[in-house]
Amino acid sequence: MGLQMDAAALNAFLAEDFAQVAPDFTILEASEDRLVAGLRVREAHLRPGGTVSGPSMFALADLAIYCAILSRIGKVPLAVTTNASIDFLRKPAAGQDMRAECRVLKLGRNLAIADTLIFSDGVEEPVARASMTYAIPPKSL
Amino acid sequence: MGLQMDAAALNAFLAEDFAQVAPDFTILEASEDRLVAGLRVREAHLRPGGTVSGPSMFALADLAIYCAILSRIGKVPLAVTTNASIDFLRKPAAGQDMRAECRVLKLGRNLAIADTLIFSDGVEEPVARASMTYAIPPKSL
Amino acid sequence: MGLQMDAAALNAFLAEDFAQVAPDFTILEASEDRLVAGLRVREAHLRPGGTVSGPSMFALADLAIYCAILSRIGKVPLAVTTNASIDFLRKPAAGQDMRAECRVLKLGRNLAIADTLIFSDGVEEPVARASMTYAIPPKSL
Amino acid sequence: MGLQMDAAALNAFLAEDFAQVAPDFTILEASEDRLVAGLRVREAHLRPGGTVSGPSMFALADLAIYCAILSRIGKVPLAVTTNASIDFLRKPAAGQDMRAECRVLKLGRNLAIADTLIFSDGVEEPVARASMTYAIPPKSL
Repeated sequence: MGLQMDAAALNAFLAEDFAQVAPDFTILEASEDRLVAGLRVREAHLRPGGTVSGPSMFALADLAIYCAILSRIGKVPLAVTTNASIDFLRKPAAGQDMRAECRVLKLGRNLAIADTLIFSDGVEEPVARASMTYAIPPKSL
Repeated sequence: MGLQMDAAALNAFLAEDFAQVAPDFTILEASEDRLVAGLRVREAHLRPGGTVSGPSMFALADLAIYCAILSRIGKVPLAVTTNASIDFLRKPAAGQDMRAECRVLKLGRNLAIADTLIFSDGVEEPVARASMTYAIPPKSL
Repeated sequence: MGLQMDAAALNAFLAEDFAQVAPDFTILEASEDRLVAGLRVREAHLRPGGTVSGPSMFALADLAIYCAILSRIGKVPLAVTTNASIDFLRKPAAGQDMRAECRVLKLGRNLAIADTLIFSDGVEEPVARASMTYAIPPKSL
Repeated sequence: MGLQMDAAALNAFLAEDFAQVAPDFTILEASEDRLVAGLRVREAHLRPGGTVSGPSMFALADLAIYCAILSRIGKVPLAVTTNASIDFLRKPAAGQDMRAECRVLKLGRNLAIADTLIFSDGVEEPVARASMTYAIPPKSL
């Protein structure tokens, strides 16, 4: 199975179906090997002290992995996260943008599994790691 | 170790130290056995179709577990989540408020672990389950 | 959906289909509300110092949750674990038997999710917590 | 922090401190970038049908990550797993040996976090993915 949606197609999909959060996120790269998504960090993503909040990193991981799966199976808006595991490794840089680098580990008929490392601009090592399982509904829905 | 902060003390702490998110959350109950936190669901928490987004449920679980731990060890604002695992079980009711019921499973010197079930008003069974690990810095900081 | 297999039926199933590990495990209780499974701790389950090994606790959680799901959906030997998250909370008592108390959180058409607390005889508080997702194949296989 | 224990030192440590399981495992490679551990699959690791059991894969992931952390911080036998998350991606080949490829994501003063992909000889794609948190006791113990 090759690439079904490239970065431009994914960004268009986000703008249309996820208008509320789309301004925060951009798909920077999408290939069969990996997907990279960026988060424009705004005031609303911060915790006291300027660090990016855990839920904001979770939102980035979730969106990036969702797009990584769609890039491989095509536009299936009803795919839903059933499980997520996230490790917070170190503090993000205050107020800097972030990016998630994902790889798809399994594309099954009913389930897809992917993981991601999250980076903060200006910090060399990853600030978080996440893996998620998505349930994929029958295509004919 | 008994209860160090009750619901009123926790709500005051949120209002002061987490002013940005405090209007969304209320600690409804805090005892040695469990803590219950409520999320006032607003437009910003919703996904297309009216369902509450995964990151919003993650934010509720994270805040509720954080407060459950503080209720037992006192005000330690530097406690940080190091790991979270969340299962999404079923769709929340469209636009309804949510609540998280937590129990603390371990209060160690360096680590605290708790889990929670998340409920959506009008849905009998839990809509999500989460467990989290918090790293607790030395008190003398 | 009521109870499809009781403790006796589950123990008979383990003896037949899981002969290799069945001598270590017993289903002690199975109701719609919870399932309790026991592990007879032997030399092979121990780590230096007499504590029960992590993989042995994982094996107990996995078997208990598998049986909790089968107790509700009937004998589906092809159900497979797709995700497991486990927190180790405190040391089990040296050489003591253990038990897992499970509750089923979701029984879907394709997925079942359950969690468990693991106890060590002689230790009041739980020594581990685990949650697992099982993929359930179409019944007609 | 460079490499504190190489593959030979780790294998010697396993033989001495983990005599019970050491015959099943070999550290094949240990560098600052990654550690590779092998599992010699025996009858005791199998499930009906010849597939390797989930607990056996968990044991491989746990031992490999433990050794990856020791390779970087030196011999700290009291490091303990506090959290593990594992995704089972596809069936291992029947009766074939397995290997775990690990990378250390964080080496903190109190916590270390690493993840791993598990491969089955003869299957190109990974059969499992796991991440674990270890609590590291003060060195002076």
